[in-house]
Amino acid sequence: MVKRRGKLLVAQTVAQTPNRIDEFKPLERYADIYWLDKMSEEEQARVLPQIDCVYSHGWPNALDSKVSQMSSLRLYQAGNAGVNGLRFDLLGKDVVVCSNAGGYSDEVAEFAIGLMLAAGKRIVKFDRQIRAGLYERKSLDELGRQVALFKEATLGIVGYGGIGRSTARLAKAFGMKVLAFGRHPVRDAGVRLVEGKAGLTRLLRESDAVVVAVPLTNSTRGMIGKKELETMKWTATLVNVARGEVVQREAVYNHLVRNPSFFYATDVWWPGGDGAESFSPNLPFSQLDNFVGTPHASGPSAIVNGTVGNVVVENLLQYFRGGRLKNVVDRSEYY
Amino acid sequence: MVKRRGKLLVAQTVAQTPNRIDEFKPLERYADIYWLDKMSEEEQARVLPQIDCVYSHGWPNALDSKVSQMSSLRLYQAGNAGVNGLRFDLLGKDVVVCSNAGGYSDEVAEFAIGLMLAAGKRIVKFDRQIRAGLYERKSLDELGRQVALFKEATLGIVGYGGIGRSTARLAKAFGMKVLAFGRHPVRDAGVRLVEGKAGLTRLLRESDAVVVAVPLTNSTRGMIGKKELETMKWTATLVNVARGEVVQREAVYNHLVRNPSFFYATDVWWPGGDGAESFSPNLPFSQLDNFVGTPHASGPSAIVNGTVGNVVVENLLQYFRGGRLKNVVDRSEYY
Repeated sequence: MVKRRGKLLVAQTVAQTPNRIDEFKPLERYADIYWLDKMSEEEQARVLPQIDCVYSHGWPNALDSKVSQMSSLRLYQAGNAGVNGLRFDLLGKDVVVCSNAGGYSDEVAEFAIGLMLAAGKRIVKFDRQIRAGLYERKSLDELGRQVALFKEATLGIVGYGGIGRSTARLAKAFGMKVLAFGRHPVRDAGVRLVEGKAGLTRLLRESDAVVVAVPLTNSTRGMIGKKELETMKWTATLVNVARGEVVQREAVYNHLVRNPSFFYATDVWWPGGDGAESFSPNLPFSQLDNFVGTPHASGPSAIVNGTVGNVVVENLLQYFRGGRLKNVVDRSEYY
Repeated sequence: MVKRRGKLLVAQTVAQTPNRIDEFKPLERYADIYWLDKMSEEEQARVLPQIDCVYSHGWPNALDSKVSQMSSLRLYQAGNAGVNGLRFDLLGKDVVVCSNAGGYSDEVAEFAIGLMLAAGKRIVKFDRQIRAGLYERKSLDELGRQVALFKEATLGIVGYGGIGRSTARLAKAFGMKVLAFGRHPVRDAGVRLVEGKAGLTRLLRESDAVVVAVPLTNSTRGMIGKKELETMKWTATLVNVARGEVVQREAVYNHLVRNPSFFYATDVWWPGGDGAESFSPNLPFSQLDNFVGTPHASGPSAIVNGTVGNVVVENLLQYFRGGRLKNVVDRSEYY
């Protein structure tokens, strides 16, 4: 199927630098491009019914009402890797939704390894103690026993997509063995795939560090709870670069309080009362020595870097040319 | 030269667990082994003049007076990688001194990369801001611009010995280009050796992150000062896993105050008034957002791990068998 000239609506972007706009250039051969925030009401009324393809980074509130006017909509291409924030209920059933999985892989993987080391090496803990004048000198033995070594240790990766694979590549350079829990069979050298409930249990039991990199779906929400935490080694480091809600908030808080050698490092947070992610939950994570928290900082560096657009633009080109789409989302997992 | 049965004095060890003592087992075939802290005064008076080989982790005060009694001493094998703490003035001129360079390489390299990421990814900074309730939400652009990406960035390694090489190996997995400043020619794939004053300047100018891993000698003391810091990129991350005194304390403090995007992450500290390394220098590093400090935590994990003994025991075996010694120190660099 070769499509006629298309109409692409850019509903929301981040980083509207010329650099970013330039990335859409290759699409101009195949489609007219409209920017939602630059269209008058009249233009919208005329154009929206003809739009067959939307690209949006995040789901702006304005889309709630606009999307119902797009009677020709066929493809919704997200700029985000995780599409859990989309209003699937408002998108017509015949709209194909594609995520930007892979668009942030290397950047988020670097960050995941950074969190693993910052927590496991006790960098954040020691830095805080030194700054507060609370660090007590230890014998070399005692100090050495606190600091995790990752060479020859085992990394469990929960969610073996683009981020998981990039993380595995880095971990292998550290001499780590890698166990991966994913939906698709993998044949990466040095990575052992585990499957099903028993596979996840094995991964949690054998890993010295666990990186969570699953999308937030109906089946992953809360998948790491009390039982899973208690299956892990008491000295393990748990890293979350997925979404806060994959890990049960109260369960991990209680686990950290009781297990001071177990570390939780997260770049992602649980939604607060206002729906936005919350930096100050009721549970005082910020008082824990075995906690490391950063503000969703892993992905945006990819936006600045420009790599985020690569997958998106390639997918949009495939759409307009009638080629194969990547990252097609199973909507039943979200809605 | 095949030596007759030797006499080894273990002057000081860390981690005197059975595991560690067991490591000396292979030596028993070639030498009688004495432990300084287990000998009576009489035994010392009888044995010390016959000792031909000392192993010590650190230089205990007791050695000051004992070493002059060891008239047969031929080899001093340090347990430390850095031998700047030795009393070279008290060791006879014909005593060969060997360091334990390489004994901590992988462990310290893991830590160096951890510090690079904890600082460059702003993990320590953001974690502190979140805990203090001072983190201000940023646009994705703004946030992304603050977080360093190391893929395709350049790492400069000042001091290309065991730690430097291990660090390079990890950095290459991140897709980093590596410039190495060292004394010996290297032919490691993906590593470009720079030499001399001009080479160091080039390394400092071109690197996005710099890891300092030189021994502290007469020629490396204070080698990173105001001029070198100002040669570096304003957004660079400087990591020190060598010795505090390689970097000029006041120069780096002033540089950090004036350049908030330049980060200094150190596992090693400057000597305080009492000669011990100081966690609370007069310059308030602990108030700086662009500083990361840990308490000499990178090496001890190798002690616990047991890998520290590998190089030492192998070298001692070579000594007693009359083979080639590794890590022979040029005493003129220290005294």
